[in-house]
Amino acid sequence: MARTIGSHGPKTMEAIRKAGLRLIFEHGYAAMSLRQLAAEVGIQSGSLYNHISTKQELLFELIRDHINELLRQLDRALQGQERPADKLRAFTAFHVSYHMTRKREVFIANSELRSLEPKNYEEIVALRGAYERRLAEILSQGVAEGEFEVVDVQVATFAILALLTGLTTWYRPGGRLTKEAIVAAHEKLVLSSVAPGTTPNQAQAKRPLSRSAATSAKPERR
Amino acid sequence: MARTIGSHGPKTMEAIRKAGLRLIFEHGYAAMSLRQLAAEVGIQSGSLYNHISTKQELLFELIRDHINELLRQLDRALQGQERPADKLRAFTAFHVSYHMTRKREVFIANSELRSLEPKNYEEIVALRGAYERRLAEILSQGVAEGEFEVVDVQVATFAILALLTGLTTWYRPGGRLTKEAIVAAHEKLVLSSVAPGTTPNQAQAKRPLSRSAATSAKPERR
Repeated sequence: MARTIGSHGPKTMEAIRKAGLRLIFEHGYAAMSLRQLAAEVGIQSGSLYNHISTKQELLFELIRDHINELLRQLDRALQGQERPADKLRAFTAFHVSYHMTRKREVFIANSELRSLEPKNYEEIVALRGAYERRLAEILSQGVAEGEFEVVDVQVATFAILALLTGLTTWYRPGGRLTKEAIVAAHEKLVLSSVAPGTTPNQAQAKRPLSRSAATSAKPERR
Repeated sequence: MARTIGSHGPKTMEAIRKAGLRLIFEHGYAAMSLRQLAAEVGIQSGSLYNHISTKQELLFELIRDHINELLRQLDRALQGQERPADKLRAFTAFHVSYHMTRKREVFIANSELRSLEPKNYEEIVALRGAYERRLAEILSQGVAEGEFEVVDVQVATFAILALLTGLTTWYRPGGRLTKEAIVAAHEKLVLSSVAPGTTPNQAQAKRPLSRSAATSAKPERR
């Protein structure tokens, strides 16, 4: 029983993560059993526990690591940008390009929030909030400097993130458009969406905001 | 054994649909058993088969009926609109308002495409295509009439739909903003996103499209 966890541990862990990602993506977290996961990796069920303690831990780490990596690379992409429009363009190009290769992670991060235990859920929502704040701050800066016009920064933040993440549902490599063309199409939409005074019929688009309701919109736990 | 399916049938079917919607939303289709579904409705497992023949049929009908209703109400909302900008505003207001009350249906229609059998999957993708085409046609008309500027109509269609549907992940009644304010915020973003010549830095947003790749982008089966 000379286990080689010292040398094979990291490789096995990587295989477990990949298999978990695929199984959760294809069937859902609740439907995935650890027995199935072990079979997919090609190890005994009992051996799984050398690498992960629970199914919940695996889900949590998959989502957490995805968002952490997203944050790290976003901050690099924004480096050196000063004007809000340049920052927004850099944000858009980064988010679109990154998500072209992270379809499964994005799907799971969105669809399996429901499966996170409360403590893990809170931690993921906080991390996601940090990412959302990067965009909200760009929009706020643009509004403050008169470059952007948005009706509500928070709604615009959520809406633009949804717009940009949407491509994970249809993008596949080798399609009709190059990656550059897809990025350019998104840049046009996003940069224009916050441009001032440009709706074809201004009067109707500028209903005043009601400020009577007091609570704030935030992602709701399903 | 005097079953009252004649009078209670439709009510029970409605209860089954509601329970199915909730269970799939909370745990995923693969994780829902018919036994669990029957218990949720408060009937015997065997009685379920008076109403649905398979779990697959229930999932299919939930998604199909959702999209059919969406199409029916959209066509009503677009009636009488002639200018592309008015159509796009009507589309936006309808889609946002409708989705405020259809969080579970939207989540399932997006996340459980993976669970549809091939024939059902094709039918749903075709229905969804019909809905997407309504928007694509509005955008194409706007471009043809010089009212809109988009880099790629198909990418813009998917992106705007994602933007508009995004609110199902955060909206809840009684939040900070009124429904009208939320609709207005989306109208500004969407109408501006396709407005001509309005990106803060035009040069970079207007990279030429590559037309070398031959296949077309369409929703991919996961």
